[in-house]
Amino acid sequence: MNASLKLSSHFATPEAKARVALAIEQLRQEFGDRLSVGAAVREQHGRGEAYARCFPPDAVIWPMSTAEVSRIVKLCNEQGVPVIAYGAGTSLEGHVSAPYGGICLDMSRMNQVLKVRSDDGDCVVQPGITREELNAYLRDTGLYFPIDPGANASIGGMISTRASGTNTIRYGTMAHNVFALEVVLANGEVIRCGSRARKSSAGYDLVRMFTGSEGTLGIITEATLRLHAQPEAVGSSVCSFPDLRGAVDTVIELIQIGAPVSRIEFLDELQVRASNAYSNLSLPEQPTLFIEFMGTQAAVTEQFERAVEVVTSHGAKGLEWAFDEQRRAQLWKARHSAYFAARALKPGAECIAADVCVPISELANCVTQTRADIDAAGLTAPILGHVGDGNFHVLFLIDPNNDEERARMDAVYGAMIATAHRLGGTCTGEHGIGLGKREKLIAEFGPPVIELMRKLKQAWDPNGILNPGKVFEIR
Amino acid sequence: MNASLKLSSHFATPEAKARVALAIEQLRQEFGDRLSVGAAVREQHGRGEAYARCFPPDAVIWPMSTAEVSRIVKLCNEQGVPVIAYGAGTSLEGHVSAPYGGICLDMSRMNQVLKVRSDDGDCVVQPGITREELNAYLRDTGLYFPIDPGANASIGGMISTRASGTNTIRYGTMAHNVFALEVVLANGEVIRCGSRARKSSAGYDLVRMFTGSEGTLGIITEATLRLHAQPEAVGSSVCSFPDLRGAVDTVIELIQIGAPVSRIEFLDELQVRASNAYSNLSLPEQPTLFIEFMGTQAAVTEQFERAVEVVTSHGAKGLEWAFDEQRRAQLWKARHSAYFAARALKPGAECIAADVCVPISELANCVTQTRADIDAAGLTAPILGHVGDGNFHVLFLIDPNNDEERARMDAVYGAMIATAHRLGGTCTGEHGIGLGKREKLIAEFGPPVIELMRKLKQAWDPNGILNPGKVFEIR
Repeated sequence: MNASLKLSSHFATPEAKARVALAIEQLRQEFGDRLSVGAAVREQHGRGEAYARCFPPDAVIWPMSTAEVSRIVKLCNEQGVPVIAYGAGTSLEGHVSAPYGGICLDMSRMNQVLKVRSDDGDCVVQPGITREELNAYLRDTGLYFPIDPGANASIGGMISTRASGTNTIRYGTMAHNVFALEVVLANGEVIRCGSRARKSSAGYDLVRMFTGSEGTLGIITEATLRLHAQPEAVGSSVCSFPDLRGAVDTVIELIQIGAPVSRIEFLDELQVRASNAYSNLSLPEQPTLFIEFMGTQAAVTEQFERAVEVVTSHGAKGLEWAFDEQRRAQLWKARHSAYFAARALKPGAECIAADVCVPISELANCVTQTRADIDAAGLTAPILGHVGDGNFHVLFLIDPNNDEERARMDAVYGAMIATAHRLGGTCTGEHGIGLGKREKLIAEFGPPVIELMRKLKQAWDPNGILNPGKVFEIR
Repeated sequence: MNASLKLSSHFATPEAKARVALAIEQLRQEFGDRLSVGAAVREQHGRGEAYARCFPPDAVIWPMSTAEVSRIVKLCNEQGVPVIAYGAGTSLEGHVSAPYGGICLDMSRMNQVLKVRSDDGDCVVQPGITREELNAYLRDTGLYFPIDPGANASIGGMISTRASGTNTIRYGTMAHNVFALEVVLANGEVIRCGSRARKSSAGYDLVRMFTGSEGTLGIITEATLRLHAQPEAVGSSVCSFPDLRGAVDTVIELIQIGAPVSRIEFLDELQVRASNAYSNLSLPEQPTLFIEFMGTQAAVTEQFERAVEVVTSHGAKGLEWAFDEQRRAQLWKARHSAYFAARALKPGAECIAADVCVPISELANCVTQTRADIDAAGLTAPILGHVGDGNFHVLFLIDPNNDEERARMDAVYGAMIATAHRLGGTCTGEHGIGLGKREKLIAEFGPPVIELMRKLKQAWDPNGILNPGKVFEIR
């Protein structure tokens, strides 16, 4: 879903280009070789994953401190130069691209853990740290940061896209796991919002306003995160269903009885076939659920017994269950390697990761319809999802040089989103809007709501320098 | 903590008063006897609970539909007349008072359940329904809405103050349990934000922006709420500790081991004494924890065994445990009647419910210091709290005619908030800012953050008609 861009932007005038050049010269004096205008570097920072079009920034800077970020943003605001924050580059909707040029802030050198407080289950980190780096750091504390969007994303990026992933059903999304933020505003001012209290009713919830704002309202320079106890026991199961309906009804029933599942992942027949081929497995090529419980040993065992009842009552066969880490890793191999297995279905293809989220009761209808549409359009595209949240992805494998095939994909993806909207769902469960879904955001809420978002953006970033063109088009 | 008011407000000019009178005349034509200017009605709507000063609105209207709310707000916006939404009147910081006059919208007749979807665990309600009315409606569905701030508040009011209460530790606050909202904006426009999807990354999180905004950004006319499965088993315990430290360390340890507690409530010695006297109980007059687990029978039993270990290792005696509802109700009687028991300590006194929330590791220090300050000031004020969240309340019992006593209270409460701030906490865990804590909000975040909130308010409500003077002073 590539976006049209407003070409007659005020960022595109000769005067604007001269201001960018001037800003780069001024910044070079401070940042020396921590500023790059090299084509390869700019190209590398001009797109995330899974977004075809590259819009390189005019320069990339690697700041090392909040004060540096503040000085850069202040200067860019005075000169009217765009500023785009860049974490690990794993976003999927063109969030980090620079369609109007400007300065990319690569936050990867601001990647320190500043504080861990075990008693309170919280930590303070810089935004450039990745979730795997953070969890490696926490390994011996008995705590961990559970949000897992798949990619080894940066914490700042995960906050900015309101990321979630496989264990949202238990731990919530990034919106539920950030206590406080330090943010550099558009004018370079540094503010702190939120607190280390577990809850607060103190005024407008600015932490939640920055979470998911895709770098358009401020640059996150520090985050206080909620940590969770590493579970004592984990039990995993893989079960194959004769049809999609059985799998989805299992999910609904497990949720209705309040079963404390920590993950429920779905793979469709094509994805299972891809995974069997890629990982040399022999799973039945049927709709498949990966279920995980966490808790004490007794609780996990009890849940397993209940889950067996529910799962078999919906026709599942071949139920396997594992408690030890090695066996669990084997069982979940098909899930963990799903992305690469899918790509191997069509070597050389571009992979577009589609993302919608619907009420759980509508999931079976929505997935069935999508599968039928994909097949009717003659596309190669396995389906998988975090079905406990009603969130599913289609991995469209498209020949990058085949515009006609891309048009067929756009039609299927468009219908999928229209269906999600009709059923009360959303055009993105976890990937965000970026450049790719701006029109879908309008379709989801209608122009008056987008106008409300624009008013907020205008009030907080009057020169429009913060990641311009993302979430909604610039005017 | 009564607030000073800006008297030279633009709402106080003779022209403004004439506009209010004109608006009331126009509205009377549509609303007839659903509009009241009677002194008793206005007085009754001019304050919540626990806020001494009454500021009556100029008129009260009982709207019956979103369209009616929209028409009222549009007219008031055109005339520059304040609009204050009123739910059950249970807020504690003067949120519903009308210091600048204007029209109070009593939402109590918009109290219908519009839809319950059991498969998806959600429901759509009008804002005037109270939480007890909603749960009575849901009784036979196997689902319930768990957020329990104590008072039988309206859902709209609970959203507007970001309410929480005793079982936040398990279910989160209102911020975690609202999927979507219908809101009437300052210009009368009706918008919908959020969706029925369990999660979304679609643009700015407007649902969370309205949640906790105290009626200053829009009037909530419909809410889609997250429901939860009624628990299969509930186990409760009451245990007395030799000192506060033992009680708090118990809480920290239970959280660190990831025990699935649903409530951990604390009562100090004075509160236990009050409850013993009021409810004819014989609890040891010591720091006391009320602990509750929810889940399957096996999980609850297992948790009980662990809790006994943890609790006794911190010196607790007299541990009682109950699984059946009747015995649980008896055990928790002291907690449930705490407010009335406290008031009975000093008949005729005004009761100011103080509210701070601190990181859990700091709770023992903060409560101990507060107790010492209360005693040194010669005040009568029991302490209780939702200690699993680090949230505690002091119930200050003050002679309404004794300004000197009130000054002593203000000093103790001020120190309590300053301590909470110094320890990384917040001036309000769940009651909100209203009129009462505007200066404390500035102390918590500093003027630049308040300025950011003001810019948002100004962008969305340029005439400043929505609940003016709440959260921050009008200019």
